[in-house]
Amino acid sequence: MSYEVTPWEVSGKVDYDRLIKEFGVSRITPELLGKLRRLAGGLHPLLERGFFFAHRDLDAVLRDYEEGRGFFLYTGRAPSKSPMHIGHLIPFLMTRWLQERFGVNAYIMIPDEEKYLAKKVESLDEVEPYVRQDILNIAALGFDEDKTFIFRDTEYIGHMYKAAVHVARHINFSTAKAVFGFHGETSIGLIFYPALQIVPTLFEHRRPLIPCAIDQDPYFRLQRDVAPKLGYYKTAELLSKFVWGLLGPGTKMSASEPETAILLNEDPDEAAKKIMNAFTGGRATKEEQRRLGGNPDICVVYHWYSLLFEEDEKALQKRRDDCLHGRLLCGPCKRELAQRVKRFLEQHQRRLKDAEKKARRMMYDGKLASKMWNWDFKPLQPREE
Amino acid sequence: MSYEVTPWEVSGKVDYDRLIKEFGVSRITPELLGKLRRLAGGLHPLLERGFFFAHRDLDAVLRDYEEGRGFFLYTGRAPSKSPMHIGHLIPFLMTRWLQERFGVNAYIMIPDEEKYLAKKVESLDEVEPYVRQDILNIAALGFDEDKTFIFRDTEYIGHMYKAAVHVARHINFSTAKAVFGFHGETSIGLIFYPALQIVPTLFEHRRPLIPCAIDQDPYFRLQRDVAPKLGYYKTAELLSKFVWGLLGPGTKMSASEPETAILLNEDPDEAAKKIMNAFTGGRATKEEQRRLGGNPDICVVYHWYSLLFEEDEKALQKRRDDCLHGRLLCGPCKRELAQRVKRFLEQHQRRLKDAEKKARRMMYDGKLASKMWNWDFKPLQPREE
Repeated sequence: MSYEVTPWEVSGKVDYDRLIKEFGVSRITPELLGKLRRLAGGLHPLLERGFFFAHRDLDAVLRDYEEGRGFFLYTGRAPSKSPMHIGHLIPFLMTRWLQERFGVNAYIMIPDEEKYLAKKVESLDEVEPYVRQDILNIAALGFDEDKTFIFRDTEYIGHMYKAAVHVARHINFSTAKAVFGFHGETSIGLIFYPALQIVPTLFEHRRPLIPCAIDQDPYFRLQRDVAPKLGYYKTAELLSKFVWGLLGPGTKMSASEPETAILLNEDPDEAAKKIMNAFTGGRATKEEQRRLGGNPDICVVYHWYSLLFEEDEKALQKRRDDCLHGRLLCGPCKRELAQRVKRFLEQHQRRLKDAEKKARRMMYDGKLASKMWNWDFKPLQPREE
Repeated sequence: MSYEVTPWEVSGKVDYDRLIKEFGVSRITPELLGKLRRLAGGLHPLLERGFFFAHRDLDAVLRDYEEGRGFFLYTGRAPSKSPMHIGHLIPFLMTRWLQERFGVNAYIMIPDEEKYLAKKVESLDEVEPYVRQDILNIAALGFDEDKTFIFRDTEYIGHMYKAAVHVARHINFSTAKAVFGFHGETSIGLIFYPALQIVPTLFEHRRPLIPCAIDQDPYFRLQRDVAPKLGYYKTAELLSKFVWGLLGPGTKMSASEPETAILLNEDPDEAAKKIMNAFTGGRATKEEQRRLGGNPDICVVYHWYSLLFEEDEKALQKRRDDCLHGRLLCGPCKRELAQRVKRFLEQHQRRLKDAEKKARRMMYDGKLASKMWNWDFKPLQPREE
């Protein structure tokens, strides 16, 4: 089966094993997961259940932490012409959890120009309402307001540009083309853009750790060539799979196709209805399902429980067993998820109401933000790693 | 004879007629020059003598001026790892003259990152001392301090980036490659850079006029495709030939090869000595020259008189005649130029002493500069031209 994974297109059924090989990243081993559990005092379900499945240098991050050198977190969201959906939260939830457990700084980039440069939207104005909305959605998640810096490119560029120039000087077109598949129709702005996305990995003279979906790896593969030349650390990555859309296993959640996703600004009752129409691993008839059991491994409803809506490991196992043995039918299983999704949206939308103040702290006058508005890039002596 | 003209390399003997055809620019006709003379109340020697020899839309600029729509000036200087030489002054002298005669705003870009991105220097630090020096050299020329804005990219980028994103979105790699000859080894920073160089043409909603050497035309050819799409004016250009270096006709003045050029920070007596060693159109012996006359058309000394060191048209003609008829020998002709170059440098270096204050006005708190530190780019409805 054919598939393509670049930071701008994910299509087809993804073969994660092949992706690990092709990208040259490592699977997270049980040993490494054990060490993370020990240092973090527990494991986030997204790690426990293997949704974050691959990494680069996570072992080095944990060693840096153990030996007192520390590390920092970096992730981001490129605003588009549609609202964020539930799947978009995943890297942020992982980043917040890591921040909580390790007490480290987190940098959140809002590349408000990327979709325009990638020709996914026709103007910056089209994106503008979502820039604000996305920032509030992220701010509402509860990051440490003094250890988190949220910045949008067109506003923070004055501080980033000199670093971007240094990064860009070390990336030749042939390399960028090989990594991103740039072609004749690519805008010269998108060709430069990877330099900008790399800049936040140079914000501290420590190892960065980037929780993100695996399609973002190409940027950071480049980062790992360039950063040591500027005297900074190769970034580490914690890489996730893609969340299934409502239409079936392996399908994409797309904010621009409302039937595939739950949007964060959606009416909670409408969202509940969408869940009731989700693709499941159920049988053709109730009778058949009672007799043969359902298939949670192809069930979008079960997938969503496991990622975002059932933290309790035992409860998840029981749900799986009950399904497999025909004791739990799709109707009640979907109804329960619909309720949880509804409650989640209600809560999130309530939190949005005072996210404005939080956003201001994390963008402008919190402790880390204040410091970053005085940040200036300095290249250092090349590093050996 | 082979030659190559790109914004980064000028090599070989340049065939200006062929260049006019290849670049698709227009020769300045006597009619157009007459109109310019009438509107400006005279002509600068660099125009009168055809050193500025080609243009794009200069006729439209003059029409805009006549009909009250006005225009604005834009030029620049990319700091390198050597000081400015006398030839570098030419676009600035032309810009200053046009500002004086038409009372218009002038924007002077100092792209302090360009040479680094173009891999001509190894670090931004290498360029830094010359950034300051170049700005002072330009500020010393006597621009109107309230109608001139001098800005360096790494400092002003916060205001330029949004416009650069709009420009970059409208330039595909294949176009940029065709125009600039980009290749696999080109840094992604240099590929983006043309977008930035185009930005100042969008500073006002009027026609820009760019006095520059013809090798800069590729940037502005691109500008003319892009600007109307963003609702701004196609730029006009006033294009010069290249100044000959001291080693002979058609040679380059290069600040990094001191024997080819007079540097602005040079000891005036040393400069005078260099002039005494310049290539001339003289004969093998004095006797021969008295009998046959010299050849001013291949003489670097005469070239420099005509460009920068003899404003009086009659005096220049007399010098030419006296040379052609063997009445003026190279020795006294060079001695006189040496004295003028020496006086010019002494005067320029004296002016540099209070250029700091002028530079501050033109960079930060003069009338135009103050306004530009509040400038924000807005795309407009596409223009038909």
